[in-house]
Amino acid sequence: MQRRLILTAGINSTGYLADSWRHVSDSPLVFAEFDHYLRATRIAHAGRLDAVFFSDHPALGADPAQRPLHSFEPLTLSTALAVAVPDIGFEITVSSTYSAPYDLARRLATLDHISGGRVICNIVSSFNPAVAANYGSAPLPPREARYRQAHEFMSVVTALLKSWNLRRPVDPQSGVWDPDFARPISHKGEFYSVAGPLNVPSDARRRALIGQAGASGPGLDFAAAYGEIIYCSLLSLPAAWNFRDELHARAKARGRAPASLRIVPGLVPIIGRTRAEALERHDAVSGAGSEKGLLRRFARDAGIDYATLDPDAPVANDLFKTSADQQRPAGFTQALAELARHERITPRQFVRRVEGGHRLVAGTADDVASDIIAWWRSGVVEGFNIQTPVLPEDLSDFVEQVVPRLQKAGIFPREYESGSLRERFELTGEI
Amino acid sequence: MQRRLILTAGINSTGYLADSWRHVSDSPLVFAEFDHYLRATRIAHAGRLDAVFFSDHPALGADPAQRPLHSFEPLTLSTALAVAVPDIGFEITVSSTYSAPYDLARRLATLDHISGGRVICNIVSSFNPAVAANYGSAPLPPREARYRQAHEFMSVVTALLKSWNLRRPVDPQSGVWDPDFARPISHKGEFYSVAGPLNVPSDARRRALIGQAGASGPGLDFAAAYGEIIYCSLLSLPAAWNFRDELHARAKARGRAPASLRIVPGLVPIIGRTRAEALERHDAVSGAGSEKGLLRRFARDAGIDYATLDPDAPVANDLFKTSADQQRPAGFTQALAELARHERITPRQFVRRVEGGHRLVAGTADDVASDIIAWWRSGVVEGFNIQTPVLPEDLSDFVEQVVPRLQKAGIFPREYESGSLRERFELTGEI
Repeated sequence: MQRRLILTAGINSTGYLADSWRHVSDSPLVFAEFDHYLRATRIAHAGRLDAVFFSDHPALGADPAQRPLHSFEPLTLSTALAVAVPDIGFEITVSSTYSAPYDLARRLATLDHISGGRVICNIVSSFNPAVAANYGSAPLPPREARYRQAHEFMSVVTALLKSWNLRRPVDPQSGVWDPDFARPISHKGEFYSVAGPLNVPSDARRRALIGQAGASGPGLDFAAAYGEIIYCSLLSLPAAWNFRDELHARAKARGRAPASLRIVPGLVPIIGRTRAEALERHDAVSGAGSEKGLLRRFARDAGIDYATLDPDAPVANDLFKTSADQQRPAGFTQALAELARHERITPRQFVRRVEGGHRLVAGTADDVASDIIAWWRSGVVEGFNIQTPVLPEDLSDFVEQVVPRLQKAGIFPREYESGSLRERFELTGEI
Repeated sequence: MQRRLILTAGINSTGYLADSWRHVSDSPLVFAEFDHYLRATRIAHAGRLDAVFFSDHPALGADPAQRPLHSFEPLTLSTALAVAVPDIGFEITVSSTYSAPYDLARRLATLDHISGGRVICNIVSSFNPAVAANYGSAPLPPREARYRQAHEFMSVVTALLKSWNLRRPVDPQSGVWDPDFARPISHKGEFYSVAGPLNVPSDARRRALIGQAGASGPGLDFAAAYGEIIYCSLLSLPAAWNFRDELHARAKARGRAPASLRIVPGLVPIIGRTRAEALERHDAVSGAGSEKGLLRRFARDAGIDYATLDPDAPVANDLFKTSADQQRPAGFTQALAELARHERITPRQFVRRVEGGHRLVAGTADDVASDIIAWWRSGVVEGFNIQTPVLPEDLSDFVEQVVPRLQKAGIFPREYESGSLRERFELTGEI
């Protein structure tokens, strides 16, 4: 297989940036309109992107100054989009803590048939107490227990998807089902008891790819065990190499080939005709309004007093620390800490390097394309998940201005390849 | 509103009859092909049917001589079909015992947006131990507890769907969400603890209609409390009038107008050019092979010795009895008992009156149309759910031969009405 760039695009709500809903050309209520997602998916399809990506929490964000980031249920929405738009894939996010494995296996197998194998299922263990409160009175389990559950969850889902023998379900002579056509899985574990078999046959070549997005220690172990498309925040090349080495070592320890894991970090492009124009747009769509506003937000996020902040003095090495029960992704905090550790970076530089937890590239289309090409050619990542600030206009700009530059560089295809995502990505080996 | 016939069609698997998979023109594996359901839905659409109906158990049937009746997950499948086929509605079946109310409310609200309000959600409490075994180690709760849970389940789902105030979610002056735009539901009950609000806004006029299919005492109470489209087995006009009176009395006792409940029993049409041809087809597709085979099946189902069966002696009044924990729908057993009680009927007549638990009409297209017209004109039902033996061919016959007769009689529309199902059925009063 010729190595080639993987490109996906996040299309939640009005866009990736918190203040995007004030900048959309349509009503902010487009977050609850199917046509909005259809438009974004068609734009992504025009750019030959591999998939659109829906992050998710099954809870309403509590900040009235922000748009609801997660609304329509991703699997249902992706099913509708898969019928309307060919070729492109759909990365959906599912909580292993708050889903029944039989339900997920069944819905995935159903959507695999409907879409022809165009699904990536991003398994998260949930870190938000607001989600827990929508699913019972028990508090969110600690991270370690959630990941123990996630492992068992995936082993049950996988066993259910493999419970059919599709080679010969019907005996043409007797006219009855082969008694061996589907076998119970008889799972009894710490968290689940599931008899099986699944009531939907599953074709291995169309089976959903498993996405994974947690970067804590238990998160990496889960990625090493089950992950195929690894979503993460990588803010500098040294941090990215560290992450890659760590992940590959853990995968090898479990007997998996590193090539069966594809590292696809988030990337926030803000495109202007000039770098100055891109920075102005960053000021606006971030909601900070100005560089000063961005610095104020940096101080608040870092828990330091803005009055004492010197925007041109290097950031302290140990400014960002992950706590075991924090209510935002551990990966975001770790990425900030790594950035401060690996580079002698000032707050003024820092605020232009990261947005919404992911790596920001604000500049011209050439700047964005060059950045993608350089990272990809270095071999440290297999691709990027593009998180555009405002939807659908910024995704249009990316597709019209950046993608052709990647195609011209020969690292991204001009047409869709045939087959399921698993076949296109040559990830049929392990299943 | 001019009263008009409601027609829906069951399109599970290869057809309603157990032996249908031996009679399909395609491979029996069509039960796991999206195109199979798409074809059936397009046929139903050509006939202007109000909805296609998916009954469901989230478990694989254990009988190797029968096709899997329930495979693709109904909500996911219906989402795909709703994008591909306009106008027609989708009746999906959901277990209140084995679903999380937040998940269902969210998926329904998502599909309501995508489909423009073309959903009927048939709530069942599950009666199959094989389902329980796919969702944990606890045995199936007794019926009374399942229905107590179903009531609480529906009250939570309803509260979540009503948790948004869509009138003015965004204040155009301040540019922030109105703090009142979505309110927590703070539900704490016997079975569920759910904070809310839902993260999808729900438009009342597009909200899914609630279907209901249980005919036991607790089932009727649930129908009286929440049901709008009432699916049931009614085998004779006297039994149907009794059912209607009983249901309406229970609805009135809860302060609901009887007109807000629509009674839509199952009907199995088997169409031939002559009555004799229809009976031959019944013999074949039932799997019984002959009238003798049908009588043998009758004896087995009734728990009597076939050797002692006199096919022309009236069936005893008390032959069929419902037990509290039986593993088939109580409504089916009750319907058989009612038929034996209300009519002096022989086994030979009996086997031609019921198939798969529902009322059978085997005859010419005129016979089937006349039967539908007579029942509907009597005022005892609002419509029928058509369960054709083999899909899609028998549904084609029904649409091509029976529907035009109903349209000519002026009781069924020639074109789809605009608006959501709720608007078309004029069921916007209570929400």
